[in-house]
Amino acid sequence: MAQTVLLDVSGVLYQGSRVIPGAVQALSRLRAAGCQVRCLTNSTRQPKRRIMGKLRELGFDIQPEEVFTPVAAALAWLDRTGHSPHLLVHPALEEEFRACKGGGPPAVVVGDAGLAFSYENMNRAFRLLLEGAPFLALADNRVFLDEDGQLSLDAGPFIKALEFASAATPRLFGKPDPEFFRAAVASTGCPPQRAAMIGDDAESDVAGALAAGLAAGYLVRTGKYREGDETRHDPAPTAAVADVLEAVDHLLTQNSL
Amino acid sequence: MAQTVLLDVSGVLYQGSRVIPGAVQALSRLRAAGCQVRCLTNSTRQPKRRIMGKLRELGFDIQPEEVFTPVAAALAWLDRTGHSPHLLVHPALEEEFRACKGGGPPAVVVGDAGLAFSYENMNRAFRLLLEGAPFLALADNRVFLDEDGQLSLDAGPFIKALEFASAATPRLFGKPDPEFFRAAVASTGCPPQRAAMIGDDAESDVAGALAAGLAAGYLVRTGKYREGDETRHDPAPTAAVADVLEAVDHLLTQNSL
Repeated sequence: MAQTVLLDVSGVLYQGSRVIPGAVQALSRLRAAGCQVRCLTNSTRQPKRRIMGKLRELGFDIQPEEVFTPVAAALAWLDRTGHSPHLLVHPALEEEFRACKGGGPPAVVVGDAGLAFSYENMNRAFRLLLEGAPFLALADNRVFLDEDGQLSLDAGPFIKALEFASAATPRLFGKPDPEFFRAAVASTGCPPQRAAMIGDDAESDVAGALAAGLAAGYLVRTGKYREGDETRHDPAPTAAVADVLEAVDHLLTQNSL
Repeated sequence: MAQTVLLDVSGVLYQGSRVIPGAVQALSRLRAAGCQVRCLTNSTRQPKRRIMGKLRELGFDIQPEEVFTPVAAALAWLDRTGHSPHLLVHPALEEEFRACKGGGPPAVVVGDAGLAFSYENMNRAFRLLLEGAPFLALADNRVFLDEDGQLSLDAGPFIKALEFASAATPRLFGKPDPEFFRAAVASTGCPPQRAAMIGDDAESDVAGALAAGLAAGYLVRTGKYREGDETRHDPAPTAAVADVLEAVDHLLTQNSL
């Protein structure tokens, strides 16, 4: 039976425009060992085609069907229910929603909008939520490691603001939604108990994967990792390791799948 | 012993540029009955001098010492601790903080910043909070009734966002902070159990005043009031009434103070 390893992308495989040392080798070792690989990213500041392009440019051997973002699941929901997306997302992400048939009443879709998180855009989304529009969250991460090396606000705080103001409950499509992990694992034909996750977000990646029933969750001390993260969230990581290469070493040598 | 009535301003005495019908008469009736009056507003989109000016222009007989905003208490805190304010407030409010001596490390001060709630300003405040700067909230109201007659986002949702992202706990200076109500009542020499509050915000004005030990809290069905507000928060209002005039009628005829 297949063994599947899910990998977060930013902070695990690369940071900004640099490969995390050992990450290309880690991926090769997983391939050589016959593991299936899926990249799961909550990053919604760029479309999937750009994430793919960047991974390949940096030397990662990844196929389009191996990259999972929350957008596909949100688009499927919109098409199924006939809602039209009212976007509060990064301008670069808008192209992915052009395929949406829409035509029905609006649904508010929130991603990591970055500078588009203006008061006016927030207020417009709030008013639609107050009128009963469904509330779709592409991700709810608190923070991400910004290009200047400091933490910056991710989509989560702004989603929390809209939730608090409108009393509407967001439907989450990215990590740590258990369905997101399970869909990625299922695409490999492997059961969750033979799959592991490697991420730099102790809450969204690691605790999320374990709560979704995956066998193991490795927390890497790269990317947005901050001292003490391994004890901040429940469930705790299977192990906290230096980086993705050490995580893969651990996975393959401990035979933990 | 004095009987004191606290009044919210926007949505109770006026709405936008219009006097709420009966509000001038309501204030006169309180004066004639020998009640002390204090106006308590969480509005932080304009300095106190403009709130005063507007009340007088609209025909309300109010003295400066009768108007309480959260700014005075926040300034006192800053002066006492020696912190310098890092402002995330409406540009019109900045003048009130010029008096601040400062010189010490930064404290993040958040009011209803309106359009100044940009991603960049939010992120700057977040990073200071992450470094341990104290977190001062001038108010934490969810929504306010905007000039176009619709509800808009107030400071509360943005404070919630910063709290969620940084795990810092805000120190609140406006309603429903019990100290804010008690300071206003104490300035009249009256004990809280001989004071009442009249407001259009069931949570911040009415439940807040009752939780602070005031004898009565009237919810008016003007301003931001929405059907069902009387049952949404705990403690429930003493009574929900049409407007401030009916609240004053009730107060004076029921002899409830």
